[in-house]
Amino acid sequence: MSVGTPVDLPAQGSEFRRARLIRFSDCDPAGIVFYPQYFVMLNGLVEDWVNEGLGLSYHGLVAVRRIGLPTVKLEADFRAVSRMGDQVALGLTVQRLGSRSMTLLVRCFDPATGELRMQMQQVLVTTSLETHRAVAIPDDMRAAILRNAPELG
Amino acid sequence: MSVGTPVDLPAQGSEFRRARLIRFSDCDPAGIVFYPQYFVMLNGLVEDWVNEGLGLSYHGLVAVRRIGLPTVKLEADFRAVSRMGDQVALGLTVQRLGSRSMTLLVRCFDPATGELRMQMQQVLVTTSLETHRAVAIPDDMRAAILRNAPELG
Amino acid sequence: MSVGTPVDLPAQGSEFRRARLIRFSDCDPAGIVFYPQYFVMLNGLVEDWVNEGLGLSYHGLVAVRRIGLPTVKLEADFRAVSRMGDQVALGLTVQRLGSRSMTLLVRCFDPATGELRMQMQQVLVTTSLETHRAVAIPDDMRAAILRNAPELG
Amino acid sequence: MSVGTPVDLPAQGSEFRRARLIRFSDCDPAGIVFYPQYFVMLNGLVEDWVNEGLGLSYHGLVAVRRIGLPTVKLEADFRAVSRMGDQVALGLTVQRLGSRSMTLLVRCFDPATGELRMQMQQVLVTTSLETHRAVAIPDDMRAAILRNAPELG
Repeated sequence: MSVGTPVDLPAQGSEFRRARLIRFSDCDPAGIVFYPQYFVMLNGLVEDWVNEGLGLSYHGLVAVRRIGLPTVKLEADFRAVSRMGDQVALGLTVQRLGSRSMTLLVRCFDPATGELRMQMQQVLVTTSLETHRAVAIPDDMRAAILRNAPELG
Repeated sequence: MSVGTPVDLPAQGSEFRRARLIRFSDCDPAGIVFYPQYFVMLNGLVEDWVNEGLGLSYHGLVAVRRIGLPTVKLEADFRAVSRMGDQVALGLTVQRLGSRSMTLLVRCFDPATGELRMQMQQVLVTTSLETHRAVAIPDDMRAAILRNAPELG
Repeated sequence: MSVGTPVDLPAQGSEFRRARLIRFSDCDPAGIVFYPQYFVMLNGLVEDWVNEGLGLSYHGLVAVRRIGLPTVKLEADFRAVSRMGDQVALGLTVQRLGSRSMTLLVRCFDPATGELRMQMQQVLVTTSLETHRAVAIPDDMRAAILRNAPELG
Repeated sequence: MSVGTPVDLPAQGSEFRRARLIRFSDCDPAGIVFYPQYFVMLNGLVEDWVNEGLGLSYHGLVAVRRIGLPTVKLEADFRAVSRMGDQVALGLTVQRLGSRSMTLLVRCFDPATGELRMQMQQVLVTTSLETHRAVAIPDDMRAAILRNAPELG
């Protein structure tokens, strides 16, 4: 039900993509996605990207290595509504790779027509979950990101 | 990310099954599934069952035909904790088919070991979303349920 | 917005009560409370009860003393729908006090008419958040419960 | 539990404020507020502002008059973590009032120290919930906003 299924879409650089069904529980009394729920979906996309796109373990990162990925800044545009039952695609591209932070462009779109539903530019920081202070992006994470997107190096 | 992927498990009668990753957003400060979140997951399983197990459209049922499937009664047991990163399986069996209600047995378990995490017996009623009153189970839904589980007829 | 306000209702034994507005974010595309959301609300009621009814600190219990209050069993009945904008009351009564578990009766009702919206009997266990195993109910919690409801002793 | 209680804070222009307890259900396995949950809290603040700050009915607006208040754009900064058990304050100021949209500055802060936890600039559009297209801000809403903040006229 929630294990990602790769989307068969024309490649767009190194965008990481997953399909998602808009569920009853995602929607509000207006019958459309309640906007905070987009952030829950996109947090799941970051999780899938770490697990499957980078080949690391999100759970291991957080629960074992005690490294968090909190969002410190985001800018989001909501362009068109998504309704219960819609099959959407979620996409993630790394735009900037710093020493202790990275900027992602994540978006939700209609895989059939390409219509953009919403997109967000999001700055994540790697932190110690003991101190909630920024720490260097782990070497294996940096290496995996650069393997997928050498232009960021 | 949330489109169901069938689970390859030994068949158990007509149980409808889907795999599910326990996500960061499912878990509480204790690092385990926040129990209300099981009900969100299992509501998603009912949605997948209607769409894929019965071959109907959950979205069409609710948004177009204006038929709801509210829960009127449930009994749940929580046997073992699920942690972030766990791959679990969700299963659904129809136990009783009435004229305007049905009883489901839904459960979450470890597909590798069979360990039961939680299970719930749940009575759903088909209602008109205009009046919130019970209506007869639609004919196509009844027929689809009986096709999968003739012993309920 | 979410700090409890005491409800002025005729006393019913030692029932702990709080008022609650049904919010947009509690409701589903049918315009009524999405049933898992009742469990989120009622978890908040348990939190308020520990903080204000028992005079302990829920946060201290979980984050400092590392004692959890997971639900191991629940039975819930949903009798009438709650709609966005409804002012409801939530009530909690301790029904049984064991050595490592307790049974609560929690309910949501219309404070104006007394109409019951839903109620749940819920068994909570006190656990160590290190091992997720049951531990004795802490002495100060037991004493506070018995102070409010001596008949449980 | 979730009916707003006014916060006793030094006035800051026409900022609308409500107190909020950070609950167990707001927090993630890192023990801090899961960032999408801030948007749920702040949506509740908008609801309280419409009901109590403007003296209108949010529920009436959405369910009866069928006018929605979707977010079309937001920029958020997360400055400091909020932990389970924290008593925070939420504040809302109207920054711009257009014909069919408005810009809000909403924020979460520590009412004791003034420490800013997060803030967001958010553009809301008034829409018809039948067509999901922008409509003029209703006259009574515009009048109520201008009554509180004449400088926007």
